[in-house]
Amino acid sequence: MATDRLTLGVAARLSRYLQVLTQAKKMGKSSISSQAISEYTNVNPTQIRRDLSGFGKFGKRGVGYDIDSLIEQIRKILRTSGQHNIGLFGAGNLGQAIATSGVFADHGFRISAIFDVDPDRVGTMVADMPVRHYRDLQEVVSGDGIMVGVLAVPGSAAQEVADDLVAAGVKIIFNYSDALLTVPSDVTVHTSSPAVELLYALYFYLS
Amino acid sequence: MATDRLTLGVAARLSRYLQVLTQAKKMGKSSISSQAISEYTNVNPTQIRRDLSGFGKFGKRGVGYDIDSLIEQIRKILRTSGQHNIGLFGAGNLGQAIATSGVFADHGFRISAIFDVDPDRVGTMVADMPVRHYRDLQEVVSGDGIMVGVLAVPGSAAQEVADDLVAAGVKIIFNYSDALLTVPSDVTVHTSSPAVELLYALYFYLS
Repeated sequence: MATDRLTLGVAARLSRYLQVLTQAKKMGKSSISSQAISEYTNVNPTQIRRDLSGFGKFGKRGVGYDIDSLIEQIRKILRTSGQHNIGLFGAGNLGQAIATSGVFADHGFRISAIFDVDPDRVGTMVADMPVRHYRDLQEVVSGDGIMVGVLAVPGSAAQEVADDLVAAGVKIIFNYSDALLTVPSDVTVHTSSPAVELLYALYFYLS
Repeated sequence: MATDRLTLGVAARLSRYLQVLTQAKKMGKSSISSQAISEYTNVNPTQIRRDLSGFGKFGKRGVGYDIDSLIEQIRKILRTSGQHNIGLFGAGNLGQAIATSGVFADHGFRISAIFDVDPDRVGTMVADMPVRHYRDLQEVVSGDGIMVGVLAVPGSAAQEVADDLVAAGVKIIFNYSDALLTVPSDVTVHTSSPAVELLYALYFYLS
């Protein structure tokens, strides 16, 4: 099974299960039921059991899933075991918040370099790393094997950074700015969109 | 049509179109094609035209959709015209980044109060607002008519804030922390999950 390509839906759900499992582990839990996973993901428990049963017998009736082994199995299935390096662009409030939170590190993503153009920030330490000058992008991306670029820059600067990342061979960009980015079709852009989720929640609340 | 309740899928897609339209407007565009909306949302153009045609004739062949009128129409359909007040919890790096960005304001959400417990932060100005003490939560939430709580607090504090928001009558919580929140079934929690989206992108990149 692990050699077949997952469907979009299965991969998306496994990623969400993995997030909940990682959070539950941090909160000191060692096992979790499909019902509990369901409450945190809004995926129904039957679907969860079906998704997970396809990859082996993790769950025990009345006990639930062993969190450690389930995390390990899902990581293997998603082939995201090991570490993947992130280049973080922007060392302002948002960049500092991202660098110092565990939001990426918990999932095997390591922020290996932080970049800025502001001379007051370049050379300062953020999350135990010196802020690099933006001009070093190409060199650091290839030297560190950076696979993901995270944009915590103003919208007006985002397209330029995206273009330079694409030129340096990066295929996955996570965009926290409000710019619409234009990239080649083999590059994936994820745009952070909390307001969209709120609009959506609000619609159902007001209806 | 506007008096019927939208399906989950339609409401989700309209919210995403609205985000793209808002961004395009900020970038100075006045019209946009279904093809362009498709590139930014990964919804296919036929689906987009179908979603939008249900609500009147916005698009002109060869010209595209008028952005201003489409934004206005979608807001009406989503019944999210007007302003909705947000209470922001945490005035650290992340809270400051959220307060000073347009990420919520662009969509009619106004951060009406910022809270913290740190005496060094309470009373300081963030985004032209004085940081309120956390103990004022109940009073400010009812006084300002706050509908949404945004949590930019450490994971260890998130459940307490969620409990207090629920007690104050807030039904929508946006959680930037890594805590799993337990709330009553009539309360919606959205958890920011950039790492999940990256895992998902990475799987398809590595496959």
